[in-house]
Amino acid sequence: MLRDPFIFDLYVDICQIPLIDPHSHIDPRRPTARTLDDILGYHYYTELAHSVGMSKTLLEADADPRDRIRDILYHMSFYDNTAQYQWFDEIARTFLGFDKPRLTLGDCTWLCDTAERLMGQPEWEEQVLHKSNIEKVFLTNDFDDPLTGFDTARYIPCLRTDDLVFHLDKPAVGQRLAKFTGIDVQSPDERRLRQAVGALFDHFKKHGARACAVSLPPDFCPAAVECPALNRALQTCDRTTVARGVFWMIAEYCREFALPFDLMIGVNRRVYTKGVYQGQDLFDQRTSLIQYAELFNAFPEVTFCVSVLTSAQNQELASYSWIFPNVVTSGHWWYSNVPAYIEHDTRARLHAVPKTKQLGYYSDMYKLEFGLPKYNMYRRIIAKILTEDFIRPGIYTRRQALDTARLLLRDNAKRIFDV
Amino acid sequence: MLRDPFIFDLYVDICQIPLIDPHSHIDPRRPTARTLDDILGYHYYTELAHSVGMSKTLLEADADPRDRIRDILYHMSFYDNTAQYQWFDEIARTFLGFDKPRLTLGDCTWLCDTAERLMGQPEWEEQVLHKSNIEKVFLTNDFDDPLTGFDTARYIPCLRTDDLVFHLDKPAVGQRLAKFTGIDVQSPDERRLRQAVGALFDHFKKHGARACAVSLPPDFCPAAVECPALNRALQTCDRTTVARGVFWMIAEYCREFALPFDLMIGVNRRVYTKGVYQGQDLFDQRTSLIQYAELFNAFPEVTFCVSVLTSAQNQELASYSWIFPNVVTSGHWWYSNVPAYIEHDTRARLHAVPKTKQLGYYSDMYKLEFGLPKYNMYRRIIAKILTEDFIRPGIYTRRQALDTARLLLRDNAKRIFDV
Amino acid sequence: MLRDPFIFDLYVDICQIPLIDPHSHIDPRRPTARTLDDILGYHYYTELAHSVGMSKTLLEADADPRDRIRDILYHMSFYDNTAQYQWFDEIARTFLGFDKPRLTLGDCTWLCDTAERLMGQPEWEEQVLHKSNIEKVFLTNDFDDPLTGFDTARYIPCLRTDDLVFHLDKPAVGQRLAKFTGIDVQSPDERRLRQAVGALFDHFKKHGARACAVSLPPDFCPAAVECPALNRALQTCDRTTVARGVFWMIAEYCREFALPFDLMIGVNRRVYTKGVYQGQDLFDQRTSLIQYAELFNAFPEVTFCVSVLTSAQNQELASYSWIFPNVVTSGHWWYSNVPAYIEHDTRARLHAVPKTKQLGYYSDMYKLEFGLPKYNMYRRIIAKILTEDFIRPGIYTRRQALDTARLLLRDNAKRIFDV
Repeated sequence: MLRDPFIFDLYVDICQIPLIDPHSHIDPRRPTARTLDDILGYHYYTELAHSVGMSKTLLEADADPRDRIRDILYHMSFYDNTAQYQWFDEIARTFLGFDKPRLTLGDCTWLCDTAERLMGQPEWEEQVLHKSNIEKVFLTNDFDDPLTGFDTARYIPCLRTDDLVFHLDKPAVGQRLAKFTGIDVQSPDERRLRQAVGALFDHFKKHGARACAVSLPPDFCPAAVECPALNRALQTCDRTTVARGVFWMIAEYCREFALPFDLMIGVNRRVYTKGVYQGQDLFDQRTSLIQYAELFNAFPEVTFCVSVLTSAQNQELASYSWIFPNVVTSGHWWYSNVPAYIEHDTRARLHAVPKTKQLGYYSDMYKLEFGLPKYNMYRRIIAKILTEDFIRPGIYTRRQALDTARLLLRDNAKRIFDV
Repeated sequence: MLRDPFIFDLYVDICQIPLIDPHSHIDPRRPTARTLDDILGYHYYTELAHSVGMSKTLLEADADPRDRIRDILYHMSFYDNTAQYQWFDEIARTFLGFDKPRLTLGDCTWLCDTAERLMGQPEWEEQVLHKSNIEKVFLTNDFDDPLTGFDTARYIPCLRTDDLVFHLDKPAVGQRLAKFTGIDVQSPDERRLRQAVGALFDHFKKHGARACAVSLPPDFCPAAVECPALNRALQTCDRTTVARGVFWMIAEYCREFALPFDLMIGVNRRVYTKGVYQGQDLFDQRTSLIQYAELFNAFPEVTFCVSVLTSAQNQELASYSWIFPNVVTSGHWWYSNVPAYIEHDTRARLHAVPKTKQLGYYSDMYKLEFGLPKYNMYRRIIAKILTEDFIRPGIYTRRQALDTARLLLRDNAKRIFDV
Repeated sequence: MLRDPFIFDLYVDICQIPLIDPHSHIDPRRPTARTLDDILGYHYYTELAHSVGMSKTLLEADADPRDRIRDILYHMSFYDNTAQYQWFDEIARTFLGFDKPRLTLGDCTWLCDTAERLMGQPEWEEQVLHKSNIEKVFLTNDFDDPLTGFDTARYIPCLRTDDLVFHLDKPAVGQRLAKFTGIDVQSPDERRLRQAVGALFDHFKKHGARACAVSLPPDFCPAAVECPALNRALQTCDRTTVARGVFWMIAEYCREFALPFDLMIGVNRRVYTKGVYQGQDLFDQRTSLIQYAELFNAFPEVTFCVSVLTSAQNQELASYSWIFPNVVTSGHWWYSNVPAYIEHDTRARLHAVPKTKQLGYYSDMYKLEFGLPKYNMYRRIIAKILTEDFIRPGIYTRRQALDTARLLLRDNAKRIFDV
């Protein structure tokens, strides 16, 4: 798909670099798809199908999977221009062996049958990882995940803390926390909460966790909350202050446990209230990393791996990462994860941010099959940028460019997360 | 003007697609220019001339038109780098037959004479439409436009509602509304206002209107206003609440009358207070589509054709349109209507938004002669993007790319506006 | 470094245009570097070195310069991808005669020795200016700079007013102002302050100053402050109002003394509190030129040369400069001064802003040696844009493109600053 033979050759060599994927939603106990429904159930397909008119009826859990697949495939023809469609096209060709010029509704049965046959093979997971050249994948684990029953050298635990920061007042969250830690946090105070969160870090660290992560709304503004203030906030259900206090506490534990903290900044949840599952979130471009200045200053020992949601804010990210030793750029998130923005943002990062401070890409995938097409999209783009902006102007040799790609795709993640 | 023969050929084929222009300011009773003054009186030329030093004296209505033209032409030499200048250059060559390498002040008399001679021909309108390959043009009609005396199949009425939303407290607006509807809205209450607005929708719908439109300041935040609150606001001249209430009422009528609602988001009026006519408006980049989330959620039956003023907000637009079924992207407006931003924004839309949810371009023109150069600018850009991002990487065949161009330039407008 | 021979040839011709650099921090009494330490002490190198882990110990004034150089050179290998590194690479090759394929730590001694030998030559300043083709350089002078002891035809004074606007309440600033003007401004009132500031303008104008300049935080919002209000603010140490009042007063003097006013908009000082010297400042993307509308309207006689810090705000700048006769675009500042953003922003300006209203670039340099690599970076970019967007599409001849480059690099500065 790259016409320039020099760029294509570089891309081929970049594909030889074993990937460390620093952020995904893989279920390590069921990492691959088992049917085409697992692939097309990805919210990128259901939300786009719904956006062009697909009713939500067939998206219900009790609907017939083949009917659902057929309906999504039908609606895909209205968005076959998107990057998301290209991921599916590449999955069908690479993993299912589809080889006709174009996917159509008529291929539905063949695709379903082939998927079931191939994905049911015992070695499917190994095949997918091998073809994708993925070595390690970071997970997104609930705080009460037992973290057992899978290979934590391959699937690296990461403590996801959204529930703790933003939903502590929900009974279910408090109950889960109490049950898992044995500490009564139903009507918590700062001390018991700190004990409980500490117990989670201890658990995760013991099971090989290499990062802590949270996604944050555009208006979130971290600040230290003193113990009495946090206690008051917990009692009065002052959610803003509780969120700040718990967030700060988590940053303190990241420091204590030497874990990098992934900040995914800018998402508003449930904006489209009747959207499909996971297809309801959007954002407000009016946000700034200046909101995080106090945090970055307060925790020089913690590495913050920062993702932003907009290409405009990417300039802030590149600049904050250029200045703050403890801020690194991380991937191309969600609404910025399309070639037009990846290319523009990557170019700016490569011109302004030290090459050792960039986590080039992460898959954000739910099923392993998506690693290949998503990383290929990124690999094509860096092959192009490294050629046009570095090799051809004589700034880098081809070897140096390839070494830089290795930093972006593997070595920086190894060093930053200590894997 | 396109050096790559493949891109040029695609451009030529794209030019064969009959255009439906979904937004203009054409006067259907006098759609074309009659003199060069009508062309150079376009605010893009007067404001740029003023920006480089032209006094406003010659821009007064009573000044000699040839003196004005000569002065604008003189000042154009200071902005012959702009896209706006290119539009004029293309008009002179295509419609007036100008064929020297460069336009200079010395060509003034020839241009004026030729324009008067050619534009006075009885078939001029047909010639312009034919050369531009424009089939239908949407208008911007005052709410009290009788909508008679022109062919509404060619010139499609659109109810412009800025006066109702933002200027209802001006006596002239109230009087016009009362006179046109026969309903006393001098000291209006919600009920009578609703009757009056309903009468306008009825009138427009009967005369073939296919859209409702409004331009909105960056801080506008739509919300439902209950009847008593709106009544209070009307009595106390609380302009913010009145604007919200009337806007919401109009959205309700769009639903009732099945009219798409064009939202042109982000303009501040009269920022440069001494600017030339129509050359005073600017913007504040700090605005977000999150302000419209309540609206988009409340009216799933209404299609919102959204234009934004900045390239940064285009990422919001692409994302909201990707998630909300009732939000479509619409054109490249005003300060974003230059190639650098059109190309970047179009690329992002084509990578992220279903192809059926994009109104590619509109002319925003006051005289038909501007359709050709403005659309050519856009057609060149999509020929380039479709070639580079779709055909050459093997994502689309040439035929599929051309079909996509047809959606952007014609078929989506046909379907969305039901013309 | 440009592969396309046509673009390279245009670049070579653009390099023949003698530069007028409208903004720098050159010390005219010691304009060039004397050692490699002067080069690598530039905050772009120290802050990036610190960002990748260099301790601040060796950056202290009393550390051994060679140790510092060696440590910076070592850390540079982690950011050899950046534009800033390329400036150094080009300095080493052009001015020091370095000719190996890559700079390494092993070259440290040779670089230091060569730098000391060459930079100590009596004609070094002339050599640097000649090789860089720089004719005039604007300075950034403290308000109490005597402005003597250098050639003000080559090094043009510019009154920097940050201290007056934002730090008047600091005793040292008041003392300096009192000492220099002979007017008691220790507990100032509006009248004496106006006298003192007037005396500064008089002094600067007499010594050949051609501009006044200030850098402004993102939330700054200029407004006229009446005399009593300013007096109250001065007494109560209301810093926001004092800043507004003094800023407005300075704008009034710019009008009276016919000096353009350079506004550098958007910087937050001391964001990274433990950063290296001059490596602590960042920004908040949430700012708008609408904040300056009142100012631009109130002073039609003053030319405002506006720099912004983000590429997103560049669209505002291009638009405000397109509309306001007294607003011109100025350079590519700080975090926007990398190729990815320069190219995007320059393209937008060239498509939308009259060519006579653009100050293409300034060096912002502290030592003359940086003029060449920084301007070369910019000259390569405009050679590319002028070729791709103007010459090849037939909009400009090569000669016209070169004339436009001359406006951007020289003639606009000559006219706007009257040099």
